[in-house]
Amino acid sequence: MKTKVLLSTLALAALPAAAFAQEAAPSFDEIGPYIMTTLLFCMAGFLVFFMAAGFAMLEGGLVRSKNVTMQMTKNIALYSVAAIMYWLIGFNLMYPGDFNGYVGSFFVPTVLDPVGVSAADAALDYASIGSDFFFQLVFVAATASIVSGALAERIKLWPFLAFVVILTGVMYPISGSWQWGGGWLSEAGFSDFAGSTVVHSVGGWAALAGAIILGPRLGKYSKEGKVTPMPGSNLALATLGTFILWLGWFGFNGGSQLAMGTVGDVSDVSRIFANTNMAAAAGAVTALVMTQLLYKKPDLTMVLNGALAGLVSITAEPLAPTLFGALWIGSVGGVIVVLAVPLLDKLKIDDVVGAIPVHLFAGIWGTIAVIFYNGDAALGTQLLGIAAYGVFTFVGALIVWIILKAIVGIRVSEEDELVGLDKAELGMEAYPEFANS
Amino acid sequence: MKTKVLLSTLALAALPAAAFAQEAAPSFDEIGPYIMTTLLFCMAGFLVFFMAAGFAMLEGGLVRSKNVTMQMTKNIALYSVAAIMYWLIGFNLMYPGDFNGYVGSFFVPTVLDPVGVSAADAALDYASIGSDFFFQLVFVAATASIVSGALAERIKLWPFLAFVVILTGVMYPISGSWQWGGGWLSEAGFSDFAGSTVVHSVGGWAALAGAIILGPRLGKYSKEGKVTPMPGSNLALATLGTFILWLGWFGFNGGSQLAMGTVGDVSDVSRIFANTNMAAAAGAVTALVMTQLLYKKPDLTMVLNGALAGLVSITAEPLAPTLFGALWIGSVGGVIVVLAVPLLDKLKIDDVVGAIPVHLFAGIWGTIAVIFYNGDAALGTQLLGIAAYGVFTFVGALIVWIILKAIVGIRVSEEDELVGLDKAELGMEAYPEFANS
Amino acid sequence: MKTKVLLSTLALAALPAAAFAQEAAPSFDEIGPYIMTTLLFCMAGFLVFFMAAGFAMLEGGLVRSKNVTMQMTKNIALYSVAAIMYWLIGFNLMYPGDFNGYVGSFFVPTVLDPVGVSAADAALDYASIGSDFFFQLVFVAATASIVSGALAERIKLWPFLAFVVILTGVMYPISGSWQWGGGWLSEAGFSDFAGSTVVHSVGGWAALAGAIILGPRLGKYSKEGKVTPMPGSNLALATLGTFILWLGWFGFNGGSQLAMGTVGDVSDVSRIFANTNMAAAAGAVTALVMTQLLYKKPDLTMVLNGALAGLVSITAEPLAPTLFGALWIGSVGGVIVVLAVPLLDKLKIDDVVGAIPVHLFAGIWGTIAVIFYNGDAALGTQLLGIAAYGVFTFVGALIVWIILKAIVGIRVSEEDELVGLDKAELGMEAYPEFANS
Repeated sequence: MKTKVLLSTLALAALPAAAFAQEAAPSFDEIGPYIMTTLLFCMAGFLVFFMAAGFAMLEGGLVRSKNVTMQMTKNIALYSVAAIMYWLIGFNLMYPGDFNGYVGSFFVPTVLDPVGVSAADAALDYASIGSDFFFQLVFVAATASIVSGALAERIKLWPFLAFVVILTGVMYPISGSWQWGGGWLSEAGFSDFAGSTVVHSVGGWAALAGAIILGPRLGKYSKEGKVTPMPGSNLALATLGTFILWLGWFGFNGGSQLAMGTVGDVSDVSRIFANTNMAAAAGAVTALVMTQLLYKKPDLTMVLNGALAGLVSITAEPLAPTLFGALWIGSVGGVIVVLAVPLLDKLKIDDVVGAIPVHLFAGIWGTIAVIFYNGDAALGTQLLGIAAYGVFTFVGALIVWIILKAIVGIRVSEEDELVGLDKAELGMEAYPEFANS
Repeated sequence: MKTKVLLSTLALAALPAAAFAQEAAPSFDEIGPYIMTTLLFCMAGFLVFFMAAGFAMLEGGLVRSKNVTMQMTKNIALYSVAAIMYWLIGFNLMYPGDFNGYVGSFFVPTVLDPVGVSAADAALDYASIGSDFFFQLVFVAATASIVSGALAERIKLWPFLAFVVILTGVMYPISGSWQWGGGWLSEAGFSDFAGSTVVHSVGGWAALAGAIILGPRLGKYSKEGKVTPMPGSNLALATLGTFILWLGWFGFNGGSQLAMGTVGDVSDVSRIFANTNMAAAAGAVTALVMTQLLYKKPDLTMVLNGALAGLVSITAEPLAPTLFGALWIGSVGGVIVVLAVPLLDKLKIDDVVGAIPVHLFAGIWGTIAVIFYNGDAALGTQLLGIAAYGVFTFVGALIVWIILKAIVGIRVSEEDELVGLDKAELGMEAYPEFANS
Repeated sequence: MKTKVLLSTLALAALPAAAFAQEAAPSFDEIGPYIMTTLLFCMAGFLVFFMAAGFAMLEGGLVRSKNVTMQMTKNIALYSVAAIMYWLIGFNLMYPGDFNGYVGSFFVPTVLDPVGVSAADAALDYASIGSDFFFQLVFVAATASIVSGALAERIKLWPFLAFVVILTGVMYPISGSWQWGGGWLSEAGFSDFAGSTVVHSVGGWAALAGAIILGPRLGKYSKEGKVTPMPGSNLALATLGTFILWLGWFGFNGGSQLAMGTVGDVSDVSRIFANTNMAAAAGAVTALVMTQLLYKKPDLTMVLNGALAGLVSITAEPLAPTLFGALWIGSVGGVIVVLAVPLLDKLKIDDVVGAIPVHLFAGIWGTIAVIFYNGDAALGTQLLGIAAYGVFTFVGALIVWIILKAIVGIRVSEEDELVGLDKAELGMEAYPEFANS
């Protein structure tokens, strides 16, 4: 209701504004932290939401023009499916009330706070359910976006979305609850602030399993081991996507402070912003310098992925490091990407956008790097967590992909792949007036 | 003034910082709500501002490449014209002081709070004038953006902008005041939280009137009733635009809570975020599934419009529904778009981007759907409001279009239309190196 | 750490949440302003960060397709280099502790507040170091982005980045400290709220020096004085970039209020939002009307630059003017751009994107315009400041460019320029499937 006049004349009866409440309004000392943290989740949430656009643009820019419409379709569909599944099953599976430490409550859709919830009924030491749900939901969508990039240009739409249903509704919430739901890994002392492992590696493992089952694009690898480059169709779009992801990461990491209502918390949020930015910058510069040194020519797609790898690397611990710490942790992320992309090609694992190096390899690195600045983290426990998420997600995803392959098939026909998914599967080209092919 | 040093040395004299004030500073219990609500308007305002980019990208992606420069020109120009008109006339016409319930004060430009306004002089139960003005202003620009999409590829620039002057300076503010200015519809009990009718249907009615007067694009409909598809030139851009609009909608609906300084208000804002997101997701998934079922091929442009229709549908009441309510309300929006787009084609009403189904039809639906979750809303009153806005805007817009057509002409020449507006009217192509045609 | 369960069970020991602190938590009256201002810097900071994407899209859209990959590479690299240099040298050079008024402390990398800083140790009258550092850092990156646009399509990557190192690490911080570090110009009464001179003119002067030393693109100017248009390859992208810059400017100017925790401050932030928006709209409309009158055809790139010039014009004093003041100040900015672009061409200074008219000329105008609404500003002092920044930056940049030219060369070979930097320098095209040339 957007009525200034109403607001002054009718507010007494209709609105929960403290100034008009009949009983004594709670003081800001009591409610300020709740308001600030709820605001943090809303703000960080819309930033992370926008990462859906970032992934779409990055992936749309890195596939060939004949598959762009399909990539757009997959990305907006996966976000939407994730939003519904996380409400229907995921959120209460991940953040359970009664909980054995491994699996939470199945099939309990999310219920929000009532409209105009009173201070007495709100979780004053935390935030509103709506803000928390929204913030967690945009994370799970990010996980699914990682998969869509790696498997682009050859996977069928509907089997891909079936996988997203299982990943976002079941797999991610179960493994997520181990750490962020207060489960066994959290009890064991595993540390992953914003999700180098819980989000990014999980997406990377699922993508890796898919890439293996699906196989490489036609013509990507010859029998003699020659790799045919298949350049992305729109590097301006890919750059835009990277900037959007970088922007969203301030919400991703900053929001994971989970509180903004004290001097310490809001300062920590800002500290995380500064470190997150530094790690991305360091990853980008490192990839720039390395590709110049290794190949004599800077490689823009490596620079973009270097920035993203820097971001993934700092995600497990964006708070504790100094700015110099963020710099070198992010820089190692950049190194990893530059080395890992050709390595995957050697293994004939075809990852269209470099999602596996960025999210899985740099995610593992970031999870290990926690031990350098966070005194509470131990290498053994970090490796335990990495392994647990790896085994669960990789094996689980492998099984799902194999079942999907057996029942409905996951790969388009050779003819359709050569024509392009846009014409063959969708009958709609992304750039009908431009593309030569 | 960005001077840390100054801040500590000169702040005593120059800045209104509470800590240095000579008299007792007002407590946060008094000023906290004002600060939070002003912040809400600033934040929601910049999100809704960004919808101008969303509309531009969506429309630029859905027109043919020969009309992209013109579409960009129209979109940045209409936003700018709306900003000026709303300051000059609109804001005080819409939110009047003295007011007969139908029309407010003409020609009273907006005046902001003085610099460094004191707590004693500020509207402590609401927000600053600057924030409120900015927030309302970006709404009116959205209305005009709806029109630019529907009438693309054939309308002349200057007559279009003349229409925008009247729409944003006069028509929208007058009808807006009926509801949000505390006018007769608000008195009657009509309910439209964030503008399914007040903003979106109004834009849709104006677009419909224009599309009828203007006529379809050359070659769009044959005499035998055959519809020639004219595919958009850049679906990646259209997808980006949709994501930007989705992002902006968190501000659109969330900011319409009009308050963020209490536990109830900030929780409601977050509740609105969650519901808004759900409705968009449901609209997108519904359009995806329906186009698969109806046409055997998913249709990306329908999915994009499905998400937008979900958003429009929840806009009249994004607070009261449960998440499941948001899901099915948004889903119906998706159904409406998939059915209405071919229907308009049957009527030979040429709406280039699907703006009329999305904003008008789903807007009507959303306004009706209020009754399912908001106990204060009655079907009769909702229909009254829908009819009042429809008659006023459609008839008013029809008259304006007819006058513009008679006096200056609103349509480019056939030759210019075939060549494309970019070359013919602007002498500047959007993609001079790419397009084949 | 994102663990709802943990939050309730372990918070006592681990988190700085006020509600659980053993000693009396500081009241919101004490900490509220710090929290709000820190939040302002985080929010404004991410908006200004996103301007890096805006510059990249604007410039990527205005260069020819054969140079787009290079322009993307330069833009993400310059942001990253700026981020590192500003941490390593810039921030403490600009905001010095001990300071002679002209130069601050060299080689003192930025150190953030400790994790979970207590209220007793925080700058309660200001904001956290992390938020301040992040906010200032994104400004310096904007300065460097201005240079990349003007010198596009012919400058080598590495010499350009070497210049960025010096500009962002040394030159900008030194001259910035004169005003925002509390140096001699600030003492003298020079007024530049958000950086028409300190940021935009500085970028413009550096670009002008570079454009002179570098020379125009091959074929741009004939000996007879004929100017060959070299139209941008993607005006949709350029429009997107402009909208993103406009969005970011709310953070740029709004955040420069440097405080949000009082009624006066948050109202001023919103006042700045409204004025900033108005100036941009006025600049755009003015350029639209002027190009129609002068050339009989509206020119989209002028409209985009008109909006940006309006923004630059209001940046020196976005707070004090009325909305009408913002309108005419921004409008003059639009006039300046339309007149200055052909003027530069007459002087055979080749500024690919119009950065010098927008940022330098409109920046000078904006700095002068301060005197009309800010009673503390005097014309003489404003001119002194403009001249000081001009001489220091132009001469300094000239020297750096000349040295770089002498030592490593700054311009690609003629052959490479004709082929395009993407193929020649990077071996990677931005649109490999589209471009005809």
